[in-house]
Amino acid sequence: MSVSVDPSITTGPIEGSEKAYQTLPDGARVPFRRVNLTNGEHLDLYDTSGPYTDSHAAIDLERGLPPRPGIVADRGTQLQRARAGEITAEMAFIAVREGVDPELVRAEVARGRAVIPANHNHPESEPMIIGKAFGVKVNANIGNSAVTSSIGEEVDKMVWATRWGADTIMDLSTGKNIHETREWILRNSPVPVGTVPIYQALEKTNGDPTKLTWELYRDTVIEQCEQGVDYMTVHAGVLLRYVPLTANRVTGIVSRGGSIMAAWCLAHHRESFLYTNFDELCEILARYDVTFSLGDGLRPGCVADANDAAQFAELRTLGELTKIAKSHGAQVMIEGPGHVPMHKIVENVRLEEELCEEAPFYTLGPLATDIAPAYDHITSAIGAAIIAQAGTAMLCYVTPKEHLGLPDRKDVKDGVIAYKIAAHAADLAKGHPRAQLRDDALSRARFEFRWHDQFALSLDPDTARAYHDETLPAEPAKSAHFCSMCGPKFCSMRITQDIRDAYGDGSAAVAQAGMDAKSAEFAQHGNQVYLPIEPTLRGSRV
Amino acid sequence: MSVSVDPSITTGPIEGSEKAYQTLPDGARVPFRRVNLTNGEHLDLYDTSGPYTDSHAAIDLERGLPPRPGIVADRGTQLQRARAGEITAEMAFIAVREGVDPELVRAEVARGRAVIPANHNHPESEPMIIGKAFGVKVNANIGNSAVTSSIGEEVDKMVWATRWGADTIMDLSTGKNIHETREWILRNSPVPVGTVPIYQALEKTNGDPTKLTWELYRDTVIEQCEQGVDYMTVHAGVLLRYVPLTANRVTGIVSRGGSIMAAWCLAHHRESFLYTNFDELCEILARYDVTFSLGDGLRPGCVADANDAAQFAELRTLGELTKIAKSHGAQVMIEGPGHVPMHKIVENVRLEEELCEEAPFYTLGPLATDIAPAYDHITSAIGAAIIAQAGTAMLCYVTPKEHLGLPDRKDVKDGVIAYKIAAHAADLAKGHPRAQLRDDALSRARFEFRWHDQFALSLDPDTARAYHDETLPAEPAKSAHFCSMCGPKFCSMRITQDIRDAYGDGSAAVAQAGMDAKSAEFAQHGNQVYLPIEPTLRGSRV
Repeated sequence: MSVSVDPSITTGPIEGSEKAYQTLPDGARVPFRRVNLTNGEHLDLYDTSGPYTDSHAAIDLERGLPPRPGIVADRGTQLQRARAGEITAEMAFIAVREGVDPELVRAEVARGRAVIPANHNHPESEPMIIGKAFGVKVNANIGNSAVTSSIGEEVDKMVWATRWGADTIMDLSTGKNIHETREWILRNSPVPVGTVPIYQALEKTNGDPTKLTWELYRDTVIEQCEQGVDYMTVHAGVLLRYVPLTANRVTGIVSRGGSIMAAWCLAHHRESFLYTNFDELCEILARYDVTFSLGDGLRPGCVADANDAAQFAELRTLGELTKIAKSHGAQVMIEGPGHVPMHKIVENVRLEEELCEEAPFYTLGPLATDIAPAYDHITSAIGAAIIAQAGTAMLCYVTPKEHLGLPDRKDVKDGVIAYKIAAHAADLAKGHPRAQLRDDALSRARFEFRWHDQFALSLDPDTARAYHDETLPAEPAKSAHFCSMCGPKFCSMRITQDIRDAYGDGSAAVAQAGMDAKSAEFAQHGNQVYLPIEPTLRGSRV
Repeated sequence: MSVSVDPSITTGPIEGSEKAYQTLPDGARVPFRRVNLTNGEHLDLYDTSGPYTDSHAAIDLERGLPPRPGIVADRGTQLQRARAGEITAEMAFIAVREGVDPELVRAEVARGRAVIPANHNHPESEPMIIGKAFGVKVNANIGNSAVTSSIGEEVDKMVWATRWGADTIMDLSTGKNIHETREWILRNSPVPVGTVPIYQALEKTNGDPTKLTWELYRDTVIEQCEQGVDYMTVHAGVLLRYVPLTANRVTGIVSRGGSIMAAWCLAHHRESFLYTNFDELCEILARYDVTFSLGDGLRPGCVADANDAAQFAELRTLGELTKIAKSHGAQVMIEGPGHVPMHKIVENVRLEEELCEEAPFYTLGPLATDIAPAYDHITSAIGAAIIAQAGTAMLCYVTPKEHLGLPDRKDVKDGVIAYKIAAHAADLAKGHPRAQLRDDALSRARFEFRWHDQFALSLDPDTARAYHDETLPAEPAKSAHFCSMCGPKFCSMRITQDIRDAYGDGSAAVAQAGMDAKSAEFAQHGNQVYLPIEPTLRGSRV
């Protein structure tokens, strides 16, 4: 790689965890984040962070990550092979990763209800699946712009985003060095990488959308397919006749790709070259097994514009294009809004499923209100949790900087964590078999005052520990039998322990029988509901 | 007031806003936050911040805020007067504040579906209403503990929380100087103040719940009524027979008040003195018009325990107590969970409404997952938005420090903003008549690149501006016709402007007619979709 980057990325395990692998017959190693608990148990969590969190891995950004085994480049797409009844190496990997039957993986891919974004030319990536039968996934957008940031920063953001749980990343670079930035990211990314090829094509016309041509776009797509991009946003649903439908919107067209295509249609008064050349595009993407992410170029940019004629007209066209892409054996997912008030969110999922043959829905938020710039990771995490519960397969994160600037390292983490929360809340609500294990393990640790375990099981152990230490910094407090809210004198958790001691398994019979006896015993012990405070704690700040 | 406090509170208007008042015939002044926009328009927003954001107000913490006019202490509660057909001074104030008919206010209070927490002895407070027919409200918990913080910090947090939109605050102090802390807060609080009297009662037994008595509790309640507390959490639904139902929970009893009462019941093997003396308690609260907040002492502390037998058994008892309280003319609201996965949230509202005659529901979150300590303002904002959409009238905030420590100033603001987002998202989803005006005004400002207006209309102008300045610090960028994400060369918002110029009002007829002409005109102008970049911007960092 010709441009050198600053290699100051974060490596090493997440606090309280270690890397664990399950090795498959083909030699592929399915990664997990193993949380070793102080009570001797452990919990293996889904792990997106790649070798960067493996204390035994040698990281060399110049060389890139080692390729995974089992890649078959000349036998078509995951969709085609699934239809043929084959359980691919990627499907076997995913089945172990998700804890499901490999046949479920194959069947969902064959039906087009799940996709496996895995370009044959991106062997560094660990296979993952996007579909509503599986865990809800999170994408993190990174990428430099004409205004700010460097290649090194973007590689760092990629590693940082996957450390905290990003399942895919999109490189949305628009400035200089687009090709080189992407190369660094691809060669070092343990997760699938998505792009919006029209951004790079626009750089080639020096920013003039009217000078875009099919040939220039096609060559850009091939360039990116060759590099190993796993999925591509294509705004082929922005048709000439839909453009006027946006004229009276409060915020018009806010999708960058959508507005580029609208400008082109407007200037040439012709149908979008993405739409008229869609068959050829399908053939190209299918050749590399690059997954379509059919973009919602007319998505609403504010709650007032949600679910309007322009948005749903485009969605109908995306439904048409889904069928065409699948007829070419290409994998397809569908992008969704944007800004949608809560009561209009579920309709988006229902309509997408109806029109697009249940192709995986991949939504940006949506933001449930427009009034909180600087907090749009929260406004959108609300919408994201609701839309994921309704069936969205992957959530594109929104950072606190949305509408205000480009995300830095802190914003990337804040965005990823907010979206891991939304995705996990949806997994719980959908009854995902593994989801609640983690909540229960953490809650048990909380109840038993195993602070170290509570931190280790959390989405962000570093921050959880730091917040706890602000109130009770001393190390003995990590095993203290009280929490920092109530202090040592009174603690509700302790009283509950006493109740449990009194009533056993909580059944009515046991309770009745034990009540009088326990009441007497309780009084006999001097009505002591609290354990004596340990001497070490008396001496600490508390 | 005998203890002196550090008076370093934040005063002055929120950026881009000024205080505005509508004066009522009785001299009361209904406050609004007036946002003056650069296009000559203005928008008046609901304002909880009191005189502290009025640049003309003289603030003297020693003296306290001036009393409002119109207080009638000897004519019963707002509920009793509403039933008698009276529109009280408080109702008239609230009608203007909420932008609704005074008769709606009276009718909802008479029906018990809304409460006006307004102790006759808290004349410093500006009347507000809690009920599902009105804007969703937000409470912020403050209060010192045995472990940390001082009176001055708590007064500062009260001013700070109301600055960012807290509609009520609860003083949950448990350490020393409980009475004095509360006095400082009450005399200076422009919003209703809630407490949990059992906390202070427990201090009087030196932390031993088994030594609590009805007499000691009653005297504590009267002390707080005399001071001016507007609503009180009473855990009278924790019955002896419910305690064993919690024994097999993952996290037992997590409510502090609930576990105090459970410990008492356990030790004495008698029914809770709150339950057995409830009639007398109603008479006391009604005398001052202190509103009951019937506490959910058995609320779930993790998603595994949500909606279980203990929780819903207590809710049935709260339903009974609601009827008793109302028969005494006392106002009542009902507290709700806690930790609840998304798919179990709505059932809580339905059951509460059914069992408690639609008394206003006042919920803590709920947290939609347990796995994100340090981010529980987000896990719970998700649950809060959903439960508020379903009919919850007031949301008790959760800060990032929940489960880890006591909130500091930053946490208080983060919690309030997250909850203002949840409340506003619910207002939008419920079709609240005024809610979308603000979103639309902000979105128009965004579309028209009126950055100052976008900041001013946001929930937190300071942070929105700071984030924008990180990317584009120069002042000219505040009116730049591009946003910081795309840079000056390409901007989707600009293209939309061009579409609007081309297609007028967006109707099909106009669009058809104008299409060819506009296409030609567009080409004639050299396909220029962008305005020339201003010279000042060429010279700036961009």
